[in-house]
Amino acid sequence: IEAKDAARIRSFLDNTNPADTALAISRIDDDLVNNLMILLNPEDAAELIEDLSDTQAAEIMEDLEPSQAAAIFEELDSDHVVDILGEMDKDDANAIISQMNPEDAEEARQFLTYDEDTAGGLMISEFLDYRSNQTVQDVLEDLQNNREEYAEYDVQYIYITDSAGHLEGVLRMRDLLFPQRSTPLSKLMIRNPYKTIVTAPLDELRNFFEEHNLFGAPVVDQDNRLVGIVLPEAVEDAKQKKSVNQFLGLSGIIGGEEFRSMPVAVRAGRRFSWLSLNIFLNIIAASIIALYQDTIAAVIALAVFLPIVSDMSGNSGQQAAAVSMRELTLGLLRPHEFGRVIIKEASVGILNGIGLGLLLGGLVYLWQGNLILGLVIGLALALNTLLSVLVGGLTPLLLKMLKLDPALVTGALITTITDMGGFFLVLSFATIVLDKL
Amino acid sequence: IEAKDAARIRSFLDNTNPADTALAISRIDDDLVNNLMILLNPEDAAELIEDLSDTQAAEIMEDLEPSQAAAIFEELDSDHVVDILGEMDKDDANAIISQMNPEDAEEARQFLTYDEDTAGGLMISEFLDYRSNQTVQDVLEDLQNNREEYAEYDVQYIYITDSAGHLEGVLRMRDLLFPQRSTPLSKLMIRNPYKTIVTAPLDELRNFFEEHNLFGAPVVDQDNRLVGIVLPEAVEDAKQKKSVNQFLGLSGIIGGEEFRSMPVAVRAGRRFSWLSLNIFLNIIAASIIALYQDTIAAVIALAVFLPIVSDMSGNSGQQAAAVSMRELTLGLLRPHEFGRVIIKEASVGILNGIGLGLLLGGLVYLWQGNLILGLVIGLALALNTLLSVLVGGLTPLLLKMLKLDPALVTGALITTITDMGGFFLVLSFATIVLDKL
Repeated sequence: IEAKDAARIRSFLDNTNPADTALAISRIDDDLVNNLMILLNPEDAAELIEDLSDTQAAEIMEDLEPSQAAAIFEELDSDHVVDILGEMDKDDANAIISQMNPEDAEEARQFLTYDEDTAGGLMISEFLDYRSNQTVQDVLEDLQNNREEYAEYDVQYIYITDSAGHLEGVLRMRDLLFPQRSTPLSKLMIRNPYKTIVTAPLDELRNFFEEHNLFGAPVVDQDNRLVGIVLPEAVEDAKQKKSVNQFLGLSGIIGGEEFRSMPVAVRAGRRFSWLSLNIFLNIIAASIIALYQDTIAAVIALAVFLPIVSDMSGNSGQQAAAVSMRELTLGLLRPHEFGRVIIKEASVGILNGIGLGLLLGGLVYLWQGNLILGLVIGLALALNTLLSVLVGGLTPLLLKMLKLDPALVTGALITTITDMGGFFLVLSFATIVLDKL
Repeated sequence: IEAKDAARIRSFLDNTNPADTALAISRIDDDLVNNLMILLNPEDAAELIEDLSDTQAAEIMEDLEPSQAAAIFEELDSDHVVDILGEMDKDDANAIISQMNPEDAEEARQFLTYDEDTAGGLMISEFLDYRSNQTVQDVLEDLQNNREEYAEYDVQYIYITDSAGHLEGVLRMRDLLFPQRSTPLSKLMIRNPYKTIVTAPLDELRNFFEEHNLFGAPVVDQDNRLVGIVLPEAVEDAKQKKSVNQFLGLSGIIGGEEFRSMPVAVRAGRRFSWLSLNIFLNIIAASIIALYQDTIAAVIALAVFLPIVSDMSGNSGQQAAAVSMRELTLGLLRPHEFGRVIIKEASVGILNGIGLGLLLGGLVYLWQGNLILGLVIGLALALNTLLSVLVGGLTPLLLKMLKLDPALVTGALITTITDMGGFFLVLSFATIVLDKL
């Protein structure tokens, strides 16, 4: 299909929805993708790139000649450019920026200095600004003359700045409908509009948009100069990406997203780094068992139940951790509220501890016909369930207070601690009543 | 503070952002919340309810008298009403609907028949429609006359319908700026606009908005009558909720969100239902160990390493499952593509299996000074890693093909299968070389 027929590819892409395009691109060979990008003119290539995730797009752009990549980047929205450059290798990114036209290159360099999850990292530089002495007629004429260019702007407001770019006011598009055409903007504009500063973090932006129901907010630098606008969609997208990455981290996929179209070595390496850390944590936990080998030698059945107790406690801990992470993300819980989590989790832990202890203890008794063994296992699981929900509920708060990302280590930490607790409780109880088992 | 001073509460709420309001409400006693809702007029209460999550809001509304709840619902957007009613007990919801005014009640009943994740469940009924023989002047006058009401509509388009409500065309607000005011809408409107049908599922809506960059889409019933509009934000929100719920399910929180403000019994019960299922799965897995008690009795050290092998394999499986679930959600993988997952996971499984096997086997050898034991554990982990990534990668596809929600059982299924594999491999290898251990 890729027989150098650019027109056919273009019409194919026009008729395909973005999800299918992304699917198709992720399935064809890297070399073919490379040829495809060279074949398309930069505008079409840019459209294609917009349909892909940032990770996918960055991979493709890295494989292109810097000059070709630069031509494509010049056709993209400023926030896309920055997101994709941010996912790339630093050297590759700089090589491409140096090939862009000076104005765009300057902008890209400036944008890259902003942190990804701040207003600066999320904003786009495409906005409409006018002077306060211009009239409604001036604006309408400019809008009509530049219709095509502005059509892609997605903007519901016009901004009023002074000649040095300082933000003075804002006006909704629809406010242009009613007044006389000779009215100067200074008479219509809302002065001191809501605005955000380039360094505003994601949570602050989210509260901002929840509080003020706006289609976009102006972003200013330290000197109140208008540098871009941030859209509520961009904020929501960033929030969603962060929350999915948190859960991926909990499943042991760290360092961003994995796609099966990535090279095997990269995928295996990313998963391995987490797993190998986990081996060491596991060995620490299992060393508890090694201390009690004599007890196990006396009652081999204990070896059957150790993995059950540790797995069940791990699950209880993960449940509590998931609730804490979710409440932290939604702002329903603050990182210092240890007391609240302890009270709320202890009550659930006691109830479920008793329930699970009775259930497993009963099953052990039925299966092995040994009441004392049932009591040992049931009691150990009950106490360890309580321990697990407390550890699980508190770990995300603790990591957040230490300014660490809860996603990265929560899962592994909780499992290690609850495993150790479970092994210790089962084996120490068993040792105490060893002569009756 | 709640000393019946409605005005003060109102000004407090006006000055608080939604996240803080939700936090405050989740912390005060149920009775106080109840008093608070009675004290506020329905309009203010509705605003407060809008700041909360659907689950929180439903809990509060259930505790109110149906007539009071109905008065508050009449002030809410139609999509909020439906979301909150949907989270409530059926009887409670019906009691409230019967107290609403007949028109709103009819609408609520109609909306509740739509599935939550379809255009019908996501749409709002607040839209602007005009006849095609009306002029630009008519529309502008109507807009100006009803400015206040429409200001909350959040709508960028006006729709043109015939007298029976059949959708004929659409017009962007800003297209009213340029033409002569006496122009009839029939001359300006875009005929046969993009539209969705009430039964359109979430994925289709998402593709729709990705394909057409619109601020909203008209929703029609089977007879092409305009019944509502769906906004891209609503689609994204629903998608995000679904994906978070998937991951919560993977952590063992099923049946929607848990908040620590819910009653202890509810929270404990929801977690327990999943944990108790897990006990039985765990016992099935552990019964493998019971079959090999003689082997363990001969080499007690095996009891130390069984939990390590099973935990490591479980993690490998979860990683592969997380990637599959993510790719399915993004449309980068289709449920029937077993072959692709097998090839892609097998390569990672072989690499990481060799790596982890060497690492753990080496550590076992160093720790226990027993080469054969190291070989047994290392080889078992290597093979079980391969098995785990295959099981983990394929389980979400299989559940999706069976039309089950992958989130519900993926985690528990994978752990059970990989545990059984790990126990079996370690113990059967050990049994084979038992006289050399």
